[in-house]
Amino acid sequence: MYRAPIKDIAHTLKQVAGLDEALEEKRFGELSADLVDAILEEAAKFAGERIAPLAETGDKHGTKLQDGVVTTAPGWKELYTDWAAGGWNALTGDEAYGGQGLPAMLSVAVSEMWNAGSVAFALAPTLTMGAVEALEKHASDELKALYLPKLISGEWTGTMNLTEPQAGSDLGALKARATRNGDDTYSLFGQKIFITYGEHDMTDNIVHLVLARLPDAPAGTKGISLFLVPKFLVNPDGSLGPRNEVFCAGIEHKLGIHASPTCTMIYGDGTSGEGAKGWLVGEENHGLACMFTMMNNARLLVGIQGVAVAEAAYQKALAFARERRQGRAPGAKAGGEMSPIIEHPDIQRTLLTMKGLTQGARAIAYACAHALDMARVSEGDEARHWADRASLLTPVAKAFGTDVGMEAASLGIQVHGGMGFIEETGAARLWRDVRITPIYEGTNGIQAIDLVQRKLPLGNGEHVKGYIAELVAIAYQAAASNRPELGETAKCLSAALADLEEATLYLQKALAEGQLAEALCGATPYLRLFGLAAGGAYLAKGALADGDAARSAICRFYAENLLNETTALKHRVMHGAESLMAAGAALQD
Amino acid sequence: MYRAPIKDIAHTLKQVAGLDEALEEKRFGELSADLVDAILEEAAKFAGERIAPLAETGDKHGTKLQDGVVTTAPGWKELYTDWAAGGWNALTGDEAYGGQGLPAMLSVAVSEMWNAGSVAFALAPTLTMGAVEALEKHASDELKALYLPKLISGEWTGTMNLTEPQAGSDLGALKARATRNGDDTYSLFGQKIFITYGEHDMTDNIVHLVLARLPDAPAGTKGISLFLVPKFLVNPDGSLGPRNEVFCAGIEHKLGIHASPTCTMIYGDGTSGEGAKGWLVGEENHGLACMFTMMNNARLLVGIQGVAVAEAAYQKALAFARERRQGRAPGAKAGGEMSPIIEHPDIQRTLLTMKGLTQGARAIAYACAHALDMARVSEGDEARHWADRASLLTPVAKAFGTDVGMEAASLGIQVHGGMGFIEETGAARLWRDVRITPIYEGTNGIQAIDLVQRKLPLGNGEHVKGYIAELVAIAYQAAASNRPELGETAKCLSAALADLEEATLYLQKALAEGQLAEALCGATPYLRLFGLAAGGAYLAKGALADGDAARSAICRFYAENLLNETTALKHRVMHGAESLMAAGAALQD
Repeated sequence: MYRAPIKDIAHTLKQVAGLDEALEEKRFGELSADLVDAILEEAAKFAGERIAPLAETGDKHGTKLQDGVVTTAPGWKELYTDWAAGGWNALTGDEAYGGQGLPAMLSVAVSEMWNAGSVAFALAPTLTMGAVEALEKHASDELKALYLPKLISGEWTGTMNLTEPQAGSDLGALKARATRNGDDTYSLFGQKIFITYGEHDMTDNIVHLVLARLPDAPAGTKGISLFLVPKFLVNPDGSLGPRNEVFCAGIEHKLGIHASPTCTMIYGDGTSGEGAKGWLVGEENHGLACMFTMMNNARLLVGIQGVAVAEAAYQKALAFARERRQGRAPGAKAGGEMSPIIEHPDIQRTLLTMKGLTQGARAIAYACAHALDMARVSEGDEARHWADRASLLTPVAKAFGTDVGMEAASLGIQVHGGMGFIEETGAARLWRDVRITPIYEGTNGIQAIDLVQRKLPLGNGEHVKGYIAELVAIAYQAAASNRPELGETAKCLSAALADLEEATLYLQKALAEGQLAEALCGATPYLRLFGLAAGGAYLAKGALADGDAARSAICRFYAENLLNETTALKHRVMHGAESLMAAGAALQD
Repeated sequence: MYRAPIKDIAHTLKQVAGLDEALEEKRFGELSADLVDAILEEAAKFAGERIAPLAETGDKHGTKLQDGVVTTAPGWKELYTDWAAGGWNALTGDEAYGGQGLPAMLSVAVSEMWNAGSVAFALAPTLTMGAVEALEKHASDELKALYLPKLISGEWTGTMNLTEPQAGSDLGALKARATRNGDDTYSLFGQKIFITYGEHDMTDNIVHLVLARLPDAPAGTKGISLFLVPKFLVNPDGSLGPRNEVFCAGIEHKLGIHASPTCTMIYGDGTSGEGAKGWLVGEENHGLACMFTMMNNARLLVGIQGVAVAEAAYQKALAFARERRQGRAPGAKAGGEMSPIIEHPDIQRTLLTMKGLTQGARAIAYACAHALDMARVSEGDEARHWADRASLLTPVAKAFGTDVGMEAASLGIQVHGGMGFIEETGAARLWRDVRITPIYEGTNGIQAIDLVQRKLPLGNGEHVKGYIAELVAIAYQAAASNRPELGETAKCLSAALADLEEATLYLQKALAEGQLAEALCGATPYLRLFGLAAGGAYLAKGALADGDAARSAICRFYAENLLNETTALKHRVMHGAESLMAAGAALQD
């Protein structure tokens, strides 16, 4: 059973991702290291004792739709209620509306725990948090006053309504429409698909944020507006009014995250003749910018889902490998009893790969959260710097984190041998659940394109160079430390960072010269290269920060066994486009 | 819907894996290229028109166990009956017992088609083939006469009974026991788990091959005997006698291959007081050697399952990528309609990676089958040579093939975006089904250990060197061909083969010096390095054999984008052990 790795999480937050310095500089007011520890410990308890034990039930029962009503799995509603009552939903919310105003770093760290307990459960608050953030930044004071307190407390949940059958990655293609009612309200019509927790029985109300077009809107992404559409209309005193014309018309039969209802939502099905009643968030035709507020947050949290599943898979595999005996490991005496499989070098390689990648991806995600926090508490150039940092790291945190989640979940099954293929073991569920994470909130391919096309040019191309320079400084520190237990870490890390730098300069040049196709050919290998190298640097930073022997050993394993992939990745970025384009053309025949 | 890639399959058989030369030299009697083509075409029809359409039904319905009776999915029994009636089960069987005596290459090629249609379906005959081979090689003439005709025709199916709860990879630990009855029969007692098609309703009888210990057997693997245990006893005239005391006590709830019943089998549950009646196959206490006959065959066929799923996933993803439109590809005109996603470079990279790896893994598997065929039709040193070749390639065909199957199935989901996570799309089923293949018939980790520890020393270490030299000759030919459409293929391939050679020599030296643990630390990266390099060489051989533009383009993509991973893999083999062992020790605390 999952136990949150509080030690690793706290170490990564404080000594790797920057929380210690920020606390010292009082950037987060009176927040202390002790309070951070207390929060992590309480969250670990809830995740391990309450969420994780219900994951299996949720997977098995899934959700049921009957007459527009979605029923979640047994125990699910109570779990959610208790979780929200514990104040967990309000962690980062605006204090003016009942939130605790804590840094995103903390929210991301506890989110890792909820997701390791059950991704399907953690999804509901993840979406609510996105809605809260969009409303905090873009909604009118009236809307905020009416909706934020209950969304922040978790009494109501929120949803994101983007996708339509013809518009997935390409939001410019969406067709849902909104008409002006002449007062402050709008009427919405259209169908949205893949709406996570679009309908459920865990709360009294659900607040949908919906992208739609006004009749006179320009074509494409510049003609999209964002609307708030509640399931039940809300009276001025906050009590619930009549049912709004938004209904769940179907739930998907999915590969994983069975306990999370993925709904087809119909806005304005004709029952009232008036459509679903909605309120504008932000300005007309500027909905995409508002939605991006939610999406960036969501992308980081999806990356954390990957890290969370990787950690859960690692713990499960490690426990199994310590118990299960098969064969004799090298050095075991012939004729003696069978060795625990953890003594076999190949199983060790598997577990260490899981552990190293998980730790690297976690550090990237936390560093991204730290940048978000610092941007919030800074001003001027400093704020710009941190905002750029968060922008740069978001696609890496999302795609590298979820790729690592997939890899670790698969390796975890492998450690279990035949038992891994049996559903009751639970390793298969982790693998099925995590399979959505490289897809939603922008596929990992789209993250890679975003990284290359939009993030490398930040700050006239200087921001990413500055970031790499920070990582290179870590490699220098590793070299200067002369710690024998780090082996060739400094050398391997320097080589990987040189690969990253070279590939970065190549892509920036290609973009500057208008060779967009060539640059995009290398997007996916570049993102992997970025994640691997940054992860390795953070592992070294962590190992240098304290004398923990296991941390140094994992850092060294990562450096000497995993980092060397960067050379091949760099080669693909810099020399892969020509053959890709030639063969790609042949594919289309 | 799946259509067998007859052109690729025939090309790989004939021009890459060696069938053309063998036919020219009349090594397989009167078998002609035309007959090969005719067989492939008929098989393609059955796989595409009959098997593939039932895959979804099989997955959805699964199998049911009630009162010891296992019911397969609707249409499954008829499908099997028609398949066997088509003569497909008898392809490679001994002609003396009704088989067609065709080469294993053909059997492997059509097996790819059955598995691409449905792995769950193809498993039944795969197990039967293994039983046929074990009986052909090791059973007495009486047993052969009684059982082989009906196993070869497919009227009955066969099973392999190895695994017990405490004995998975380590067969030395098994406990099932057999007692001598004083006549030519034995009584078997014990429990076996994970028995594929251990019980089903598709045939009148099932022939179990069961590993068990005699009372006076030595401990470990030298005390294991192989027994034939039929579900119904067989009268001397071949008609069915009374029910034997072997029953299915449970079927597993699995991640994939739902239509294939995975049974817990109980031998001798006390109903007769006599145990299950069995007959010895081969000699007492030499069961493991007999079982290895089945297992080697089965390992190659599991590798083919990986190739098959990779091909099916590729076809599905390619079709989707041609239809689905999202965004604008580089160079598409702004404001025009959305581009088919196949025009996006990142999707092209994904599809080309799937295609290249599939083709490489297919060639390795077919080359392994060719070696088996040549060993069968040769004598003396030549037979030894080909037997060694088959031994060398079997773990690579199994592990690289199934790893490629997993990778392609996952990439296939990714191409589908959100639709890939919806079960009705079918991409998720392929991914679930293929997940068992790196596990059963010896996990891929065990294949890697087998390759390093048992296969590198073949022929005093010279066999593998000779094999690599053959691959190097292909790289020379590529260089000499001077074909511009092959780009840097020769250079990349030479570098990869140099990596393979260097890693091989390192491992041979480590083994010779008794550094077993160090060598085994590198087993998994070495197998991947072997598979990647050999696959690249076979792609080049195929491209050189004809002027097909698409084949050359894929070969070049593989060489310039995928092969460069070998350097990192070599580094892990040669320089990864120290950090692995240091960190591995920390894992055990």
